[in-house]
Amino acid sequence: MMPSRGFPEAEYGDRLARAQNLMAAADLSALLLTTEPDVRYFTGFLTRFWESPTRPWFLVVPASGSPVAVIPSIGASLMAKTWLRDIRTWSAPDLEDDGISLLAETLREVAGGRGAVGLPSGLESHLRMPLADLARLGRAVQGIRLVDDAGILRDLRAVKSEAEIAKIRHACQIAGRAFARVPEIARPGVPLSDVFRRFQMLALEEGADWVPYLAGGAGPDGYDDVISPASDKPLAVGDILMLDTGLVWDGYFCDYDRNFAIMSVTPQACDAHRRLIEATAAGRDAAVAGATAADLYNALACALGQKTGAGRLGHGLGMQLTEGLSLIPGDDTVLQAGMVVTLEPGLPTREGRIMVHEENIVIRDGPAEPLSAFAGPDLPVLS
Amino acid sequence: MMPSRGFPEAEYGDRLARAQNLMAAADLSALLLTTEPDVRYFTGFLTRFWESPTRPWFLVVPASGSPVAVIPSIGASLMAKTWLRDIRTWSAPDLEDDGISLLAETLREVAGGRGAVGLPSGLESHLRMPLADLARLGRAVQGIRLVDDAGILRDLRAVKSEAEIAKIRHACQIAGRAFARVPEIARPGVPLSDVFRRFQMLALEEGADWVPYLAGGAGPDGYDDVISPASDKPLAVGDILMLDTGLVWDGYFCDYDRNFAIMSVTPQACDAHRRLIEATAAGRDAAVAGATAADLYNALACALGQKTGAGRLGHGLGMQLTEGLSLIPGDDTVLQAGMVVTLEPGLPTREGRIMVHEENIVIRDGPAEPLSAFAGPDLPVLS
Repeated sequence: MMPSRGFPEAEYGDRLARAQNLMAAADLSALLLTTEPDVRYFTGFLTRFWESPTRPWFLVVPASGSPVAVIPSIGASLMAKTWLRDIRTWSAPDLEDDGISLLAETLREVAGGRGAVGLPSGLESHLRMPLADLARLGRAVQGIRLVDDAGILRDLRAVKSEAEIAKIRHACQIAGRAFARVPEIARPGVPLSDVFRRFQMLALEEGADWVPYLAGGAGPDGYDDVISPASDKPLAVGDILMLDTGLVWDGYFCDYDRNFAIMSVTPQACDAHRRLIEATAAGRDAAVAGATAADLYNALACALGQKTGAGRLGHGLGMQLTEGLSLIPGDDTVLQAGMVVTLEPGLPTREGRIMVHEENIVIRDGPAEPLSAFAGPDLPVLS
Repeated sequence: MMPSRGFPEAEYGDRLARAQNLMAAADLSALLLTTEPDVRYFTGFLTRFWESPTRPWFLVVPASGSPVAVIPSIGASLMAKTWLRDIRTWSAPDLEDDGISLLAETLREVAGGRGAVGLPSGLESHLRMPLADLARLGRAVQGIRLVDDAGILRDLRAVKSEAEIAKIRHACQIAGRAFARVPEIARPGVPLSDVFRRFQMLALEEGADWVPYLAGGAGPDGYDDVISPASDKPLAVGDILMLDTGLVWDGYFCDYDRNFAIMSVTPQACDAHRRLIEATAAGRDAAVAGATAADLYNALACALGQKTGAGRLGHGLGMQLTEGLSLIPGDDTVLQAGMVVTLEPGLPTREGRIMVHEENIVIRDGPAEPLSAFAGPDLPVLS
């Protein structure tokens, strides 16, 4: 069944309450948010207009009370459809003052002219406004200090609500239907670029709102990397084709892949696929609340026989294609129920060739729940 | 005819030489670049992997000599396919040191341990790395100052080469073929969300690599804003449907729209469309090298009878959906041959309703050249 679009207003209230608890503990007067997912997390403001880098957008989350949007007037109508009531606008772009004095005034009002305002500044974060404007803002807020957000956004967004999980599950199901139709579009002689184009069409036809991410590769016994755009090289008999998609439904991503053999397959590729599936299963078994991201990495790496060399073996997932924890030896993040994680083992198959498999799960109080329909051990052969 | 993918190596040499001339004038030892288009501009590094926010990517452009990539090892194979020869990698994400010491070492080497390194910091720019890492970098580069890039990236990217223009023209042609097929997908009773989904499929089928941007709206005599995602509301007889797409071919965008009347049309909507087309033509006539962005704004606004209220009436276009100049009263950017510009007049049609039209042109030494096939004055009625 298709989940509802959007969230009940109570969900935003919960998010705000959790944020304000953490802000109190970190002694922050407000949070200042500038990126698409951070602003959307507290507002529900959903638009592809962020693709335009021209205008900055600001959300001020105060230590008590409701969030204040400080945004370009072009977004006022859409923001007014969210639960926010305090929406302040300027006509952007303004080459002299692109919202900075309005934002500074808002921060001074909210923070009472002193205290610390937190900006996400750690791993994976960035500030979506010009650096020169940050310097201007720092001067304009006078007694207020601009500091790190103490990881509050990262921590909040890591644990998903059931409504968020339902959206990710739905995105996974859409991708699953598109993967099931790959036999319609992949055969010897078809350029990989055509396969990419047609796969995006399948994803849309099956219900994706849009397809921000598609990667993959094709070659004998695997591919040389997993981030290249598609070349025009035609698929050949014996190629392993991999498609890895991050499609979006109502602002939430799936991120998983499927491998296919074109007409024929070598024992090496079959064996690699089987081992990737086994590693994924081992990862799923190890994905329990209380374990760490590093524990989960170790379970996957151990199942792979340590022959990874591929860097991280999975990551968090949600409003972004990758977010939050990393399955690497050094990440001690403790898994909690509600965290959505990708399991992404990879193996070398021969010199310069790898195969990668990926599935999506959500951590539960009991065993992890698969969000993608886990692939079986047999590499599908398209004939 | 389809242009070639990529660019000849000489084009990157030209871009580098132009950058180094400007760097000498600004007394910069190097540029430090962190965003997708800025890195791609000097390297040709093209991947959708930037959708993942986890890893930072750095490009150092020295005052003399070739650029140095300082990137996560997951990108080494793809970067090695570009013209770059000096590629330095680390295993990202690294929670202790996510490339910062490697980057600092590279900057010290390139800048000779002193001088100023320019980062794009002005309008429309942002730094795609954690703020906390920028602070770490500032400490690690010791005698080197991190300063603004003096607008060098913005100026360089504003004027397109013929090869770049050919890619944008090709993207426009793909969109044109998709717009011509809108009668296949839009009729009374079809939810707007389905029209959006199907239009993206048409864009892909007609040759788009991907469709990062689609906006639009539908309603009697127009729509209430131009940035909302599609609702599930069905199209109704008498609606004006607008679709505005930024699709990409080989890393370059088009950005234009088309309006359609569903079955029937009011004199108000017909008249608004005709006036938008006239304003666009007036803009095209005024778009000559030596005029300013503000002059072009004035030509459009005058043709609209000053009833805009819509903020800017167009913008630069290229590797991003919107980039560079803005058609607003305050932008004194001088138009130069090779600048690609959108003309985007809007008009209110009735309380809370607007119509917007958009076309793409390139500034030439003579009259501006249309890149999109300009629409005629008659609003197409889908029946």
